[in-house]
Amino acid sequence: MSANPVLVEVTRGEMVESRHRGAVAVVDADGQTAAGIGDITRLIYPRSALKPLQALHLIESGASAAYQLGDREIALACASHNGQEQHVSAVVHWLERLGLDESALECGTHSPRRSFDREALLRQGKKPGPAHNNCSGKHSGFLTAALHGGHATEAYIARDHPVQQAVLALIGEMAGSSLREAPGGIDGCGIPVAGMTLEHLAVAFSRFVTGDGLAPTRASAARQVYEAMTNEPFLVAGTDRWCTNAIQAGCGAFIVKTGAEGVYCGAVPEAGIGVALKIDDGAHRASECAMGAVLSEISCLKAFFTNPPIELIRTPVKNVAGKTVGEIRPAAAFQQMITDVPG
Amino acid sequence: MSANPVLVEVTRGEMVESRHRGAVAVVDADGQTAAGIGDITRLIYPRSALKPLQALHLIESGASAAYQLGDREIALACASHNGQEQHVSAVVHWLERLGLDESALECGTHSPRRSFDREALLRQGKKPGPAHNNCSGKHSGFLTAALHGGHATEAYIARDHPVQQAVLALIGEMAGSSLREAPGGIDGCGIPVAGMTLEHLAVAFSRFVTGDGLAPTRASAARQVYEAMTNEPFLVAGTDRWCTNAIQAGCGAFIVKTGAEGVYCGAVPEAGIGVALKIDDGAHRASECAMGAVLSEISCLKAFFTNPPIELIRTPVKNVAGKTVGEIRPAAAFQQMITDVPG
Repeated sequence: MSANPVLVEVTRGEMVESRHRGAVAVVDADGQTAAGIGDITRLIYPRSALKPLQALHLIESGASAAYQLGDREIALACASHNGQEQHVSAVVHWLERLGLDESALECGTHSPRRSFDREALLRQGKKPGPAHNNCSGKHSGFLTAALHGGHATEAYIARDHPVQQAVLALIGEMAGSSLREAPGGIDGCGIPVAGMTLEHLAVAFSRFVTGDGLAPTRASAARQVYEAMTNEPFLVAGTDRWCTNAIQAGCGAFIVKTGAEGVYCGAVPEAGIGVALKIDDGAHRASECAMGAVLSEISCLKAFFTNPPIELIRTPVKNVAGKTVGEIRPAAAFQQMITDVPG
Repeated sequence: MSANPVLVEVTRGEMVESRHRGAVAVVDADGQTAAGIGDITRLIYPRSALKPLQALHLIESGASAAYQLGDREIALACASHNGQEQHVSAVVHWLERLGLDESALECGTHSPRRSFDREALLRQGKKPGPAHNNCSGKHSGFLTAALHGGHATEAYIARDHPVQQAVLALIGEMAGSSLREAPGGIDGCGIPVAGMTLEHLAVAFSRFVTGDGLAPTRASAARQVYEAMTNEPFLVAGTDRWCTNAIQAGCGAFIVKTGAEGVYCGAVPEAGIGVALKIDDGAHRASECAMGAVLSEISCLKAFFTNPPIELIRTPVKNVAGKTVGEIRPAAAFQQMITDVPG
């Protein structure tokens, strides 16, 4: 297997200390690869970067309308959230509306992402529950779809549950490549994952914003998901999170969504562009930096992201005492990408 | 820059999800490269993997004897510890012996590594201090050497402080390559770092256990550091830590020491072998796995590590609900390494 190029460098003092390799696919409104770095035909797991596509089923099935979900719930269905009080209470209220509580969630429990929120819970003598899981909004969406479809809510995460079957079929349709024979596994939150290429993933995100080849209900669902994410960016991630800060900085011009193990996806409606990238080693710090470079440096995109905040592209490395001792920055591969692409 | 081989794979379900590249240098008692993977002549920062070498100055300067330090303090000087109660109280007592308190430490403050210890502090209404910093033992060693040498204890972390100058000179001597012209930076705990090759780093760890070419006081200091680490492996890291578990499993046959950004070093006295490895992307999960593979699979070493616990080499990937969904495992590069090396 050939090595992908270095996408992100981590410096310390006078040299580069660590290097992150990876691949990036940028697909245009015609479904063609507008730009690419590395091997975009290798199978990867999209992980949580798929959430905006998974949320389409919640809407096009009619479940969302039946339960009168709004931007807040749809944004949470797309979220890998911090488990801050606002995220958790919104999920709990949503579940109440379904006649359920957080014990119906099968995503498992983990502590909130930020020490501030973990310590606040502890001071209140509370323990985290499944609603604190960063995927609790997506799972509430699955439960909503299961109820609306008349399916069991138990074992809604199983691969053979009608909701998971519908979602997997939908993703294959969006990507133009069935996932039926794809290698599979189990995600961090228990749902099935299927291997896809970055190219197909970027195609899906391009069609997500162009609506090309989508049934009217699906195209409409995609617009609704897009608007929910841009209207409620805090609910998509939270305080000090790259997704939230980037969507806010984009002022509606694009969405981005992180996934575990170094995945990032994005979509830019005015350009008709879908983006999918994966850092080979799975590093989150590098996937953020790489997505910042894609949005701000690639010629077919940078018109849509004017004055990008530098902290979305270059992050200082600080030592324990708070002194800046290095930097996480895009590598030269992105410069190459720009020159390769027609302006 | 050519790509190093994949050393470690992270699987999920039916495929490899993430890949970690890197390089490994294994140097024998003659100072020759006994085995190698990837580019071992590229400069890296050894970070905390250097601590056993940095501790030599504490002993050979006479500071350790003057303050009657024992295995516990020497092990802590080599530690990247968890900040558990045992680590912190031992450091605080050591500083008291110097007539100092933790405010003399210039390493900065961070919370204990484990949530258990963070929550215990919070429940007691306490805040972490500099003694909780994983490097507080090393810094206590620097303070001991500064006092014994009649130097200022303020700014003992500065590159031009006599203790840092002595330590940098010592490391260059051990490696057989001066660090005077090496590219430099600042470590996470504030002390100077200097770029070294993996080859030179492995040479230093080989000489650490063979004593070859070392002055008698330095060779004796190295034996003392080695014994402290193998006698007090808990103080070198702590509960659920790879360094501690591996040193315990080795029953005195080797030491290992982790460093930030994917570095691991090790030394095997009976084989006269020094090991140094770096994961290119800086991932800790991969450096542990790679060191496990080096110790258990390389023909010139595996005789010294009989019945290695499988969890030191292959680690399950679990999802939030606790289900095993994948594995962190050595890649084929290590098999290649074995066949390349005379038995």
